[in-house]
Amino acid sequence: MKNLFADRMENVPASFIREILKFTQSKDVISFAGGLPNPAFFPVEDIKKSAVKVLEADGTRVLQYAETEGHLPLREYISDYMLRRKNLKVPVEEIQITNGSQQAIALICKTFLNKGETVVLERPSYLGAIQAISFYEPEFHTVELEDDGINIEELESTLEAHPAKLFYSVPNFNNPSGITWSLEKRQEVARILSNHEMIYFEDDPYYEVRYEGEHLPSVKSFYDKNVILTSSFSKMVAPGFRIGWICAQKDLMEKIVISKQAADLQPGTFAQRVLHQYLTDYNIENHLVKIRETYKRQKDKMVEMMKQELPEEVKFTNPQGGMFLWATMPENASCRDVLSITIEKKVVFVPGDTFYVDGKGFNCMRLNFSNSPEEKIVKGVKILADAMKEVIAKHNKLKTVPV
Amino acid sequence: MKNLFADRMENVPASFIREILKFTQSKDVISFAGGLPNPAFFPVEDIKKSAVKVLEADGTRVLQYAETEGHLPLREYISDYMLRRKNLKVPVEEIQITNGSQQAIALICKTFLNKGETVVLERPSYLGAIQAISFYEPEFHTVELEDDGINIEELESTLEAHPAKLFYSVPNFNNPSGITWSLEKRQEVARILSNHEMIYFEDDPYYEVRYEGEHLPSVKSFYDKNVILTSSFSKMVAPGFRIGWICAQKDLMEKIVISKQAADLQPGTFAQRVLHQYLTDYNIENHLVKIRETYKRQKDKMVEMMKQELPEEVKFTNPQGGMFLWATMPENASCRDVLSITIEKKVVFVPGDTFYVDGKGFNCMRLNFSNSPEEKIVKGVKILADAMKEVIAKHNKLKTVPV
Repeated sequence: MKNLFADRMENVPASFIREILKFTQSKDVISFAGGLPNPAFFPVEDIKKSAVKVLEADGTRVLQYAETEGHLPLREYISDYMLRRKNLKVPVEEIQITNGSQQAIALICKTFLNKGETVVLERPSYLGAIQAISFYEPEFHTVELEDDGINIEELESTLEAHPAKLFYSVPNFNNPSGITWSLEKRQEVARILSNHEMIYFEDDPYYEVRYEGEHLPSVKSFYDKNVILTSSFSKMVAPGFRIGWICAQKDLMEKIVISKQAADLQPGTFAQRVLHQYLTDYNIENHLVKIRETYKRQKDKMVEMMKQELPEEVKFTNPQGGMFLWATMPENASCRDVLSITIEKKVVFVPGDTFYVDGKGFNCMRLNFSNSPEEKIVKGVKILADAMKEVIAKHNKLKTVPV
Repeated sequence: MKNLFADRMENVPASFIREILKFTQSKDVISFAGGLPNPAFFPVEDIKKSAVKVLEADGTRVLQYAETEGHLPLREYISDYMLRRKNLKVPVEEIQITNGSQQAIALICKTFLNKGETVVLERPSYLGAIQAISFYEPEFHTVELEDDGINIEELESTLEAHPAKLFYSVPNFNNPSGITWSLEKRQEVARILSNHEMIYFEDDPYYEVRYEGEHLPSVKSFYDKNVILTSSFSKMVAPGFRIGWICAQKDLMEKIVISKQAADLQPGTFAQRVLHQYLTDYNIENHLVKIRETYKRQKDKMVEMMKQELPEEVKFTNPQGGMFLWATMPENASCRDVLSITIEKKVVFVPGDTFYVDGKGFNCMRLNFSNSPEEKIVKGVKILADAMKEVIAKHNKLKTVPV
């Protein structure tokens, strides 16, 4: 039979996380795998009131087609939010509402990427971005993430050797590693951007989920040309609305809007209107305070347990925000071997190679703490630690077999 | 400055309809331009009750991430609906929920189309499809729509001369023309499909909006291999949910799901859950009866006015369903000239060339009747008729100038 699929489908991986989502929804599974926010904090009652209010006040328009760019008052809210919280002036004309930040990534790729052009990523990088970008058949180059952010020298030499069309990064609480770029590195990246004509894509979905340390200014605040900033209400309010946004200067935005039209005409009016009513009537800061406290407690518990239980050869990050930490086993110890043990005991996580474009990272793993209560973290880390010890011991034994 | 946009952006038109949507939302405009359902029939009160019910019963899951394929009970509803209403057996595994049928088109293109491959369209064809497909830089070939559907001989010869990857059509109440394929033409197309290995894409958003004549079986009911059928709740319930669906056999669906993952992870849980609660608690047939009666009355009024007012050289269709009719002026009389007159008098429609990929159709126009009350139809058609007479007279005068 003829292969009817487009060539681009050959190199696109299915999302590991999405594939195990069904499995992890079962109650007795301890899942460190997903990127699910803690549903205990979804403002269900307030959203119910918001839905009733907006349907009663303006029901026919809430259910009708509307503008591709998104509901104007919601874009005004975002514009105001960007100024208030991030000290960034983003006029309404420079805001497009999307179906979560995943669609933002897909639309930006569609608008800017030709086949074979260079895309630079952090190493490791967000799996959803790797997947969306892969459709456009780029040449990937990656730059190491150090404890305080991207390796500046490697970024410069990479961009010199491989002039890029797009540089994608998550400077706040990188997914998967939890690493945050320092102020100095942000300024350094801004300086580098001024020497290269390309799109810099600053993905910032976790900004509000900082529970330690000071907020840092975005790279866009230091250098604005061809910089696209994206974010989402998924972690701030709830992911079920699928509402994120793109900020891009007007000449870029004009084409992004056309990509959005062709992709699905417009963001859903119903979801936008209910969310906007909620944002208007309630103060999300009250809601965020609870999220931050809880995530910090859960993260602290996971770090404490990992310090206590994990073999000392295993390193891990201690993030100031976001939803993930990143553990690194000794070289050549495989996290897929660990997973095959823990999955039998109903503990799952995402193997590190998923976040690499070159098959590396197989000795690493991403661990989510936002969606597990403390007792599950305690239990899960113990099971994880035992499995790691087993895999590392087997590996050491192999190493010491006489030749 | 370097052009940072992808090459594919060069040939993609902005949507005329989307661009004038802002203009047409003003109350004193008579818009025959949009494809808006009549909001008077949106079941606002029932949807409000459904939102309250589902949020009270299962709020945290309604606002959480969920499966890429869509909410399982909603897919079960669709599977049952396809059997009940269209006599088609479509198992749940062969259904993917999308953001309206526009996203269905975009995902199918992404999954199957390589640059330069042949796409066959009806002539005229749906603008949103032309736009979405254009991103994938195909070679377009078009086949004439006759009064009873696609020209079978031209379809056969086109497919012989240009082996196609994809054939896209709207057999029920084609947008823009309102034309419906006869039973015989459906069977003929099925026969032709069995001789060609390609994707046949049957887009069917208006099925339930038939107000005259008998329902006809889908092409998929005669030939199933590599046939993808799409539809939407936008015209059946309300477009503000942005919920449509794709039916495709399992081996095709596996890749379509990956395209959906990368595009935006999943359809919005909140919109899906509220819509599903509404579909479960209420009988949409009651709601559809009202839509059909009203659209028929509006269509009849438009046809009556056109017979009465339009110059006799202008031909137009009289559809059995859907939301549009299609008027054809004498060759070389331009609908854009007509539009430039009517727009001053606040009457708008979509010029026909928008629905062609070869710049033809400029003497045609698409007229929407679903979103205008009868008094606006009466007034609008008169203004339209006067403008047509003016343009045709000017054109005739030019023709008779002595050389």
